[in-house]
Amino acid sequence: MGLVDPISPGVVPGSDVAHFALLGYDPFRFYTGRGSLEAVGAGIRLAPTDVAFRCNFATVDENLTVVDRRAGRIKEHTQDLAESLNGMRITSAPDVAAEFHSTIEHRAVLVLRGPSISRMVSDTDPHATNIKVAKSTPLDETPASKKTAVALNEFTEKSFEILQKHEVNIERRSRGQNPANIVIARGPGTLPPITPLTVQYGLKAACVAAIPMVRGICKISGMEVLNVEGATGGLDTNLDAKAHAALEASEKNDLVFLHVKATDIPSHDGDFEMKKKILEKIDKMFGTMFDQIDLGNTYIALTADHATPISVRDHSADPVPIVIAGPDFPPSGLKKFSEKNSAHGNIGRIRALDIIPMIADRLGRAKKFGF
Amino acid sequence: MGLVDPISPGVVPGSDVAHFALLGYDPFRFYTGRGSLEAVGAGIRLAPTDVAFRCNFATVDENLTVVDRRAGRIKEHTQDLAESLNGMRITSAPDVAAEFHSTIEHRAVLVLRGPSISRMVSDTDPHATNIKVAKSTPLDETPASKKTAVALNEFTEKSFEILQKHEVNIERRSRGQNPANIVIARGPGTLPPITPLTVQYGLKAACVAAIPMVRGICKISGMEVLNVEGATGGLDTNLDAKAHAALEASEKNDLVFLHVKATDIPSHDGDFEMKKKILEKIDKMFGTMFDQIDLGNTYIALTADHATPISVRDHSADPVPIVIAGPDFPPSGLKKFSEKNSAHGNIGRIRALDIIPMIADRLGRAKKFGF
Repeated sequence: MGLVDPISPGVVPGSDVAHFALLGYDPFRFYTGRGSLEAVGAGIRLAPTDVAFRCNFATVDENLTVVDRRAGRIKEHTQDLAESLNGMRITSAPDVAAEFHSTIEHRAVLVLRGPSISRMVSDTDPHATNIKVAKSTPLDETPASKKTAVALNEFTEKSFEILQKHEVNIERRSRGQNPANIVIARGPGTLPPITPLTVQYGLKAACVAAIPMVRGICKISGMEVLNVEGATGGLDTNLDAKAHAALEASEKNDLVFLHVKATDIPSHDGDFEMKKKILEKIDKMFGTMFDQIDLGNTYIALTADHATPISVRDHSADPVPIVIAGPDFPPSGLKKFSEKNSAHGNIGRIRALDIIPMIADRLGRAKKFGF
Repeated sequence: MGLVDPISPGVVPGSDVAHFALLGYDPFRFYTGRGSLEAVGAGIRLAPTDVAFRCNFATVDENLTVVDRRAGRIKEHTQDLAESLNGMRITSAPDVAAEFHSTIEHRAVLVLRGPSISRMVSDTDPHATNIKVAKSTPLDETPASKKTAVALNEFTEKSFEILQKHEVNIERRSRGQNPANIVIARGPGTLPPITPLTVQYGLKAACVAAIPMVRGICKISGMEVLNVEGATGGLDTNLDAKAHAALEASEKNDLVFLHVKATDIPSHDGDFEMKKKILEKIDKMFGTMFDQIDLGNTYIALTADHATPISVRDHSADPVPIVIAGPDFPPSGLKKFSEKNSAHGNIGRIRALDIIPMIADRLGRAKKFGF
């Protein structure tokens, strides 16, 4: 048992960089934005030169002032809306192609493809209502960033022109619903230049995860990303189904990554009772799993990507507990897995970045450094 | 008491990079191959542009297929054999000189000297028998690496021509012994670009160590490398003599590094009883030393360069225990120095790289960083 700093003491991590570290990649070296992770997680193939954005369908008035950043949390006909934008010609950058796909509810992914484009541009999502959709601006001096900002602004304006008169929105207005009449983009990203951990360590690996960003990182890491019915990434997720899928995958893989998002949601909401309920469900899930795993022949590491204290309602820089069990991991002599006990465990205090090397070593897949 | 990661958690260290870290040098920045350490340890002076290789006298058949990588562990007349190769003219690289010296038993060191040579070349040692001596190839695109590989290959071929008909080998054949009829090379290295710790901290330092690689690193670190009769680096090493030499050296030096290799040998062999015996001998040696040291005026740090668990029979990534005693180092309150207890010591979990700065600080030799 021990403590893990997601990045280093005092650094508050986003879920994306925390997962980079958890999978053994230094985010200071390899993190290249969020949009690419979402895109890959949504099943889109990216080339190393593509720039991907996380997008929302949003509602704006005629002055492009944002009324609703999620277009009434639109659920239906988003594919029809997306199709009307996918493949759009960008006049200001004729060698750039715009690929656009809806994902879950009001969410979508935009991929700009072409020579000399850049992720160093600002968001068009103003991250607030009652202000105008933002103009993307280049964040550095390169021609590529300037060109990308211009292309993104053209895409955004044209998305309004096309969606404003789309029949799905005519119907939504007639029903008194907010129209999904513009696309706002954030989090530009390119494919991170990492060596898949499956290649680095010669492992066959799989992941059980519901949310697109985590699925994206796992895919880029070389894992097979499994689809599990009932795994939603929400409070209603089917933990038994996830556990069952992970156990099944462990028979055909050297490494299985099982990700549960659900505790993070009530933590952001400050909902103590719901968080407790989810933790109890996870506890039960592990009980079931431990009964079915041969710990003389398997390593299990249990940890978190970051803390989200109820009192903070957001991610915090606190270290998170870790327990690793399996052959030749000596016990800490502590009876209970808790944040308090973990501070006295025999692993001491490590970084998330250290976990995959420690496990690869135990699996006999670590290469000796030096002679 | 505490835990030390030789490099970082999960990284399996070779003895060479582990000693770099132990002496305060980041191996990721400063490690430039093993051959140079062996060469310096064997008493050879290297220029910063020289490339040194660890070599074996080996036995090959007429097709240069390796029959015995150690030429029957030849012990005698190796200096005569070495002299026949030392100073060889390299026709394919006329500005390169080849210096060649035998060291212990079948071991030797080759130094290539000249303008524009490189350590980025592959070994001629095939690291196995029943296959041919390897052709060295450049490991990068530079002309220097290409030139070095060509020179090394020429040296290797000529070593066969010369040694095959050497009178020492004629005699060995007549006695039914494997001839030492070729030189195979591995681990090219250059002098690491480090500032000696004696200079960095203004210390006078000495080392008591038997194996050439450790002696080499200590010498490059600015230490006086002592010769102790009976210190062999083997199971038969005279620990009393080493302890006595270290105690004596401590009177004239600020820092003394005492290295014992012997525990590593039965660990690689999986010989539990022998390892226990060696540990008991070391324990006794420390008892003797502690009796003669004024701990009110001296710091002692005891640790290992890496773990070699009997169950693994090779280096592992496990952290190693450390105990530091001396003025103003508060006790951990633990009664016994063990791996288990060290996980709960008051030093916590540090890296080997941290030890020398911690000691230099206690000796009042650490310079303030900033103002």
